[in-house]
Amino acid sequence: MAVSARTTQTLVETVSSAIMERIAGRQLMPGARLPSVRAFADSMGVSKSTVVEAYERLGAEGAIVARRGSGFYVAGKTRPLCLKEVGPQLDRAVDPLWITRQSMQAGPDLLKPGSGWLPSSWMPEEAIRRALRQIAREPESNLTCYDQPLGLPPLRSQIARRLAEKGVEAEADQIVLTDSATQAVDLLCRFLLDPGDTVVVDDPCYFNFSALLRANRAKVVGVPFTPSGPDVAALERVIVEHRPRFYLTNSALHNPTGATLTPTVAHRVLKLAEAHDVLIIEDDIFADLEPDPAPRYAGFDGLNRVIAVGSFSKTLSASIRCGYIALRPDWVEGLVDLKLALSLGNGHLSAALMHRLITDGAYRRHLAEIREKLARGMGQTARRLEECGLTIWTEPRGGLFLWARLPDGLDSADVARAALARDVVLAPGAAFSTGEAGRDFLRFNVGHCADPAIFRVLQDSMATVAKGAV
Amino acid sequence: MAVSARTTQTLVETVSSAIMERIAGRQLMPGARLPSVRAFADSMGVSKSTVVEAYERLGAEGAIVARRGSGFYVAGKTRPLCLKEVGPQLDRAVDPLWITRQSMQAGPDLLKPGSGWLPSSWMPEEAIRRALRQIAREPESNLTCYDQPLGLPPLRSQIARRLAEKGVEAEADQIVLTDSATQAVDLLCRFLLDPGDTVVVDDPCYFNFSALLRANRAKVVGVPFTPSGPDVAALERVIVEHRPRFYLTNSALHNPTGATLTPTVAHRVLKLAEAHDVLIIEDDIFADLEPDPAPRYAGFDGLNRVIAVGSFSKTLSASIRCGYIALRPDWVEGLVDLKLALSLGNGHLSAALMHRLITDGAYRRHLAEIREKLARGMGQTARRLEECGLTIWTEPRGGLFLWARLPDGLDSADVARAALARDVVLAPGAAFSTGEAGRDFLRFNVGHCADPAIFRVLQDSMATVAKGAV
Repeated sequence: MAVSARTTQTLVETVSSAIMERIAGRQLMPGARLPSVRAFADSMGVSKSTVVEAYERLGAEGAIVARRGSGFYVAGKTRPLCLKEVGPQLDRAVDPLWITRQSMQAGPDLLKPGSGWLPSSWMPEEAIRRALRQIAREPESNLTCYDQPLGLPPLRSQIARRLAEKGVEAEADQIVLTDSATQAVDLLCRFLLDPGDTVVVDDPCYFNFSALLRANRAKVVGVPFTPSGPDVAALERVIVEHRPRFYLTNSALHNPTGATLTPTVAHRVLKLAEAHDVLIIEDDIFADLEPDPAPRYAGFDGLNRVIAVGSFSKTLSASIRCGYIALRPDWVEGLVDLKLALSLGNGHLSAALMHRLITDGAYRRHLAEIREKLARGMGQTARRLEECGLTIWTEPRGGLFLWARLPDGLDSADVARAALARDVVLAPGAAFSTGEAGRDFLRFNVGHCADPAIFRVLQDSMATVAKGAV
Repeated sequence: MAVSARTTQTLVETVSSAIMERIAGRQLMPGARLPSVRAFADSMGVSKSTVVEAYERLGAEGAIVARRGSGFYVAGKTRPLCLKEVGPQLDRAVDPLWITRQSMQAGPDLLKPGSGWLPSSWMPEEAIRRALRQIAREPESNLTCYDQPLGLPPLRSQIARRLAEKGVEAEADQIVLTDSATQAVDLLCRFLLDPGDTVVVDDPCYFNFSALLRANRAKVVGVPFTPSGPDVAALERVIVEHRPRFYLTNSALHNPTGATLTPTVAHRVLKLAEAHDVLIIEDDIFADLEPDPAPRYAGFDGLNRVIAVGSFSKTLSASIRCGYIALRPDWVEGLVDLKLALSLGNGHLSAALMHRLITDGAYRRHLAEIREKLARGMGQTARRLEECGLTIWTEPRGGLFLWARLPDGLDSADVARAALARDVVLAPGAAFSTGEAGRDFLRFNVGHCADPAIFRVLQDSMATVAKGAV
């Protein structure tokens, strides 16, 4: 009797295990309906009661769910989209989302030389206060209503003028306001992508691009980046093989390398895009930091196949939230319909603040100061990094970032972990690259590298890793 | 010779037509690769040169695209997502997106009795000005940095307290700030839905729900609404048949009917949700307008299976942009990761403004005034509608909306078209219902019905339609 009972138990376990294996191997997906009791019993050569007991056991464990009148389903449909599970499993030191969260939390004791934005002390706080007071004072301020669908017209006109200064021709009505460049790129993903479509990015690239594209269920393929822009031959191979929907990039002051597109590369990439029906989304949030205008895909192409994206978060304020998209006129209405459906529009108050800050010259003066501070910071930071034994990949024309290579093949993720233990948050290359391109690189933000302690910790961390002691 | 030439022409046309039929019938989708020349020639029993000529002709017409080294593809991949094409084709008078746009454009000559929001003259402009000045003055204001990932902590605490007053228990750290309720629901769609999943809504429901869900590639199924909440028997049938991921609804002051959920219906719906593993998203943007707290799914359920969504756009300001999500603690981190990836966060300045307006009591005083104005407006509007021969579906406890039925089976879309010709924008039931439920209904906003001209135009329009003269 005991033997029979054990044998029966073993059969139930066998059936349960078989189901769990299929679930783990994703042949049975969350929410999928399990075979009927009879069908499964037949296929496994066991009795229906064995299957019933196995299903009930798995139900009690929560692995499957019974639905009245409908059968059994793999549990987990209730399990929402967790970005951490969609992408590669990363520990904190190299997890872009973790690095982002760290930068956002208050943390005066943490040094953040890998940060993606300017020190708050550099931002034009007095000008913003003045703009707030002016808006509070003026009778005609719109403080309560939704903004117009495209967004505040005078701000769009200003943006059109600023784009023209960079060689990009756009009418004000080709410009759609958003909350930020990130939200702009996300809106464009919703507008342009079907699930499973492929998108090309630079390798390395701004790490949030990858997270955002994965959240849009896109397949992400990287193309090696050079000091002049993308490796054109590699880009062609990727385009032919993967037939991407679009290529997402920065032209000026590339994040993280600081490189700038050359006219030759721009021309060749646009020819590829045309030959293979690929769009280009050109994110230029750092453009206002360049000393003189660099080539723009949108400039060469005239917003035919290129969509330009920008914002003021990096250069003016991340608290106010204002960005934009410039695109071909015949797509504006469809994009705005989508924007309205998904958000009912952006903040009028934010747009009004931006408009005022640009109008009264505050923004221009502020940019001039920042460019100067960054130029000094860049020279100083580059020297200190070289003193630590790192090599700068390419000398940027301006902007925030230095892309620096560790000596002796040191792994930057290891160095970042060691530095984290000493309260310094570095930005290791693995956060910016799905391939091997960033393995021994770190991104430094020259606005956050004033404290000499950073370089002491860097050297200590390098030594620790070199000793194999991480 | 001439005959042969014509025959050859006919063969090329035959091949071209065969391809165009497959494209039109969507057997060949935009971006799909056409058969190779050889394969197609074989299958159609024609020469390869005939196929080549057909492909080239279609290429010249733009119906297909040649990709170097890759073959021929159906054109149109470049065509982005147009919501108008995804949903039913609607003319302006019944197109929710058009109605929304109208409400947002400046238009003093247009009367908008179907509008979805309060008159701007009712909004607490003076209080907002004061809050702006205070924030401009205070040294510790954060005017430039990203907000924390969850959003400004004191505002989340205030929201937690306000939810508690309505019977919904939530810790501040179960609350995630967003830009609006619309953006909150969209974020939840990204978080919870796979393409093709089904979502249940009320019939009728807030029209932007449908547009938003379609933009998220969800299948939308409506359940008839009653003066006590959804028709529970119908809801059960829909759940069993369609296995939806969630049910999206308003509990208090339902949009468009003004009805409020009863405890009995709430209880039964929650039991169904539990039996069939369905989530509930409870959007309560009008909740602050109710005279006393109504039952809440989130209150009964304790944020286990229910997610609560709200904002201040309707009651405080749509210009500032601030909303929230309250959900189970173990999903907060995943939701915030997604929010960061898609937007890098929401406006700190907006959250700070909201916090101040709630703290200094301005919001509470403002709500009291609005509720009083709405109560007067509701009584007056209901009388006028009844004088025009309409019947009110259910008498709301408060809020903005009256859901009114036209007499004699008049079609509200026809009446709306006639009114539009007279510069009055009505909100016909067809905009709120994918079924027949709204065919002879109109939604009225009692805050926008003061002008007697509205009712003259309404009567004239009804008469025009009755005469068959639209």
